[in-house]
Amino acid sequence: MRKHRAGLLRLALSGLLITGVMAARSDAQAERPNIVILFADDLGYGDLTCYGHPTIRTPHLDRMAREGTRFTDFYSAAPVCTPSRAALLTGRLPLRSGMTSDTRRVLFPNSRGGLPAEEITLAEALKGAGYRTACIGKWHLGHKPEFLPTRNGFDSYFGIPYSNDMDRLPNAGGPSGSLSPKVGWFNVPLMRNETVVERPADQHTLTRRYSEEASKFIRANRRNPFLLYVPFTMPHVPLFASSEFAGKSPRGLYGDVVEELDGAVGRVLDTLRAEGLSRKTLVVFTSDNGPWLTQRLAGGSAGLLRDGKGSTWEGGMREPAIAWWPGKVRAGRVCRGVASTLDLFPACLALAGVQPPADRPIDGHDISGLLKGDERSPRNTYFFYRDTQLYAVRKGAFKAHYLTRTGYGQAPAVRHDPPLLFNLDVDPSETMDVAAAHPDVVRDIAAVTERHRAGMVAGRNQLDDIDPPAR
Amino acid sequence: MRKHRAGLLRLALSGLLITGVMAARSDAQAERPNIVILFADDLGYGDLTCYGHPTIRTPHLDRMAREGTRFTDFYSAAPVCTPSRAALLTGRLPLRSGMTSDTRRVLFPNSRGGLPAEEITLAEALKGAGYRTACIGKWHLGHKPEFLPTRNGFDSYFGIPYSNDMDRLPNAGGPSGSLSPKVGWFNVPLMRNETVVERPADQHTLTRRYSEEASKFIRANRRNPFLLYVPFTMPHVPLFASSEFAGKSPRGLYGDVVEELDGAVGRVLDTLRAEGLSRKTLVVFTSDNGPWLTQRLAGGSAGLLRDGKGSTWEGGMREPAIAWWPGKVRAGRVCRGVASTLDLFPACLALAGVQPPADRPIDGHDISGLLKGDERSPRNTYFFYRDTQLYAVRKGAFKAHYLTRTGYGQAPAVRHDPPLLFNLDVDPSETMDVAAAHPDVVRDIAAVTERHRAGMVAGRNQLDDIDPPAR
Repeated sequence: MRKHRAGLLRLALSGLLITGVMAARSDAQAERPNIVILFADDLGYGDLTCYGHPTIRTPHLDRMAREGTRFTDFYSAAPVCTPSRAALLTGRLPLRSGMTSDTRRVLFPNSRGGLPAEEITLAEALKGAGYRTACIGKWHLGHKPEFLPTRNGFDSYFGIPYSNDMDRLPNAGGPSGSLSPKVGWFNVPLMRNETVVERPADQHTLTRRYSEEASKFIRANRRNPFLLYVPFTMPHVPLFASSEFAGKSPRGLYGDVVEELDGAVGRVLDTLRAEGLSRKTLVVFTSDNGPWLTQRLAGGSAGLLRDGKGSTWEGGMREPAIAWWPGKVRAGRVCRGVASTLDLFPACLALAGVQPPADRPIDGHDISGLLKGDERSPRNTYFFYRDTQLYAVRKGAFKAHYLTRTGYGQAPAVRHDPPLLFNLDVDPSETMDVAAAHPDVVRDIAAVTERHRAGMVAGRNQLDDIDPPAR
Repeated sequence: MRKHRAGLLRLALSGLLITGVMAARSDAQAERPNIVILFADDLGYGDLTCYGHPTIRTPHLDRMAREGTRFTDFYSAAPVCTPSRAALLTGRLPLRSGMTSDTRRVLFPNSRGGLPAEEITLAEALKGAGYRTACIGKWHLGHKPEFLPTRNGFDSYFGIPYSNDMDRLPNAGGPSGSLSPKVGWFNVPLMRNETVVERPADQHTLTRRYSEEASKFIRANRRNPFLLYVPFTMPHVPLFASSEFAGKSPRGLYGDVVEELDGAVGRVLDTLRAEGLSRKTLVVFTSDNGPWLTQRLAGGSAGLLRDGKGSTWEGGMREPAIAWWPGKVRAGRVCRGVASTLDLFPACLALAGVQPPADRPIDGHDISGLLKGDERSPRNTYFFYRDTQLYAVRKGAFKAHYLTRTGYGQAPAVRHDPPLLFNLDVDPSETMDVAAAHPDVVRDIAAVTERHRAGMVAGRNQLDDIDPPAR
């Protein structure tokens, strides 16, 4: 009952906020595009053919890149799942919404928290402007009813509420990163809207079913503007592929799973083409964080970048990213501007003619111009948080690391004063500290960092609120 | 005088050998293509945009890949310059020709040896079949007159005879891998045919001049079948770019140099297009060995591959490789078959309708079918030599390392018994030894290795013969 009330209150509150902040620009109304966000889970910078992987075959994403724009310096907003997703949907650093924690890092099945009702999601913002909205895939922003996608602006939801390796059963036969996991090792629920419809979820068919649901949603809404958010479950461990893809990739199971993801992207784009929506739809593909390197062969590759998931080295947060919108996003472009999942919120609002909320800090920049071909990104800085701590700051080509720590592993954080400084354009692998040669850059970034810290108000921590242990 | 006689003897000898081994197939005569081999120096697997580099911009090579076939598993025949080049031009492992040494690794300005006269080069073989032949670039197969390109089947030569970091003058101001080297630190000669025309060579303009010479050669021979071999001097240290490219790449000087190389490739392809030769010319672009990692920011990146130049880890010998021949080589293909510079000799001979020499072992396989679109490579094994020692053997996806050693550095070789075993398809970064799980594969590769060793006769060492020290 408490939950239900909270949900109602939340809806009302969101409605008020949305009404307050949105003045739809009538001139944009006529051509406001559909928005499709395809979001992989734990995919590495080096895992696609078009980013240089030798044995993972991704013809649909490669075609998407040829027909659209491929980014070299596109960042997720956090190196792990929950905060990364909170940031994508709100345009705000996860520390502001309380969706990050130093002790738990992400939400777990015993978590009681979730994305606070006062946060405005992209779905809420676009719904208020007449968009139909669907979330199909892994949510991971709170699985209590009041936090589900349907309470966060999505008309419908189909997917799993948290990571596919959670809810491990006591008789589970091997590690989550096993190369032959069994569905029965995990008790992960599959939900439609607010109801569990399958448990454990048959993970072999999740990617295929997500793409089927996505295609169905597109066909049903071909006359509406729509927002379709598809946070895939894969290639997060445990890895499962359907019979169509299992055993096919030279890269082994991890390759099967990424190739099936690629096929799912192809199916979504094909549906848009078939429905005549190509020229009315912006599609963005990226991932929530870097590859989970400690999963060994069940994890991906960051290519030439350093470290992976969990860390603020480039491999933890720089992601493959492809934007596609025939006629609007330039075909075959490689864009080297700095951009981020944080920027999708303001960019999509701008494309839909919706004013962003003015009552709160938004960390995203409107990259709609960059998507459409502007040479320069409106973003020149980037803030790399690990959990609640600011570890590193990029300005232009330079990145200063105040703290470093490998993504997963026992070694504690190391503090650097002066910070380590890398020129990412010259040295994308972060191998050569050039702080001594550039004291001016170190000072400049320090000033930027101080201003950022001064403007940062942490939200109430949502991740450390957990169910009492069973007795 | 001795040299001159040796040269004459050599020409006569080559002529006899060539006459003996070549029976031009008349049906192939009509459409035998021009052959252009563009060969970079120390370029890494990860250094081109189309292989995933974020800040080195290579639009011409990327276009070449879109219009042609890009290889994922293409190997040089050695991890350093001299043996790699000897192998490319003869189709034979460098140990057979004596063009490799454990003590000196490559030829130096005080070397007296070079490619033995009895070796048959691609130029000699094609010249015998009516091809015009030119070598434009870094030779490094012997700088005494009897070893120059003009004595090895090339009608003309323009370039430097050995590496651009050799011939360092006593007053040289910094390391070869300096990011601001001076032309005057090096006394490298630039030659036309057998004459030194500039010393020191103005290295800033070498790449540009090579492409101009190449274009001139193409235009002059538009009615002949021709072989054009362009072994670029760059991006081997010291790095020099012309004013058109210097200071332009986000990647810094190394990027400037690779981007100028890319521009030079574009100029060659544009000349072929302008002369109407696109559909009559096979162009292959690759490199002699992996990136020289110990040069730090003056060296390249092997992307996700392990180690670099000098080593038999993948980063030392797996190279970017692109084949282009509109109408014959399939456009936009990513070919994952195993292939090598060794294979260009038999493939080019086959395309020209020339029988390969039957009196000697040829280590290359005829990949002309693979180039034209065959699914499977005729090559299933690869032998990784470091100098005169066989370090590793690949069969199918598996690579067994009997010896490992980092490319440059003081650590000695480590012997492995049983060998380290990696599945390169699943684990291209060679991180996870799976020998214990695959004893059958280890045995199988051991048998292949024994057969290979039994058939290997080392030629007389050409690299350890040096001038007596000045007195």
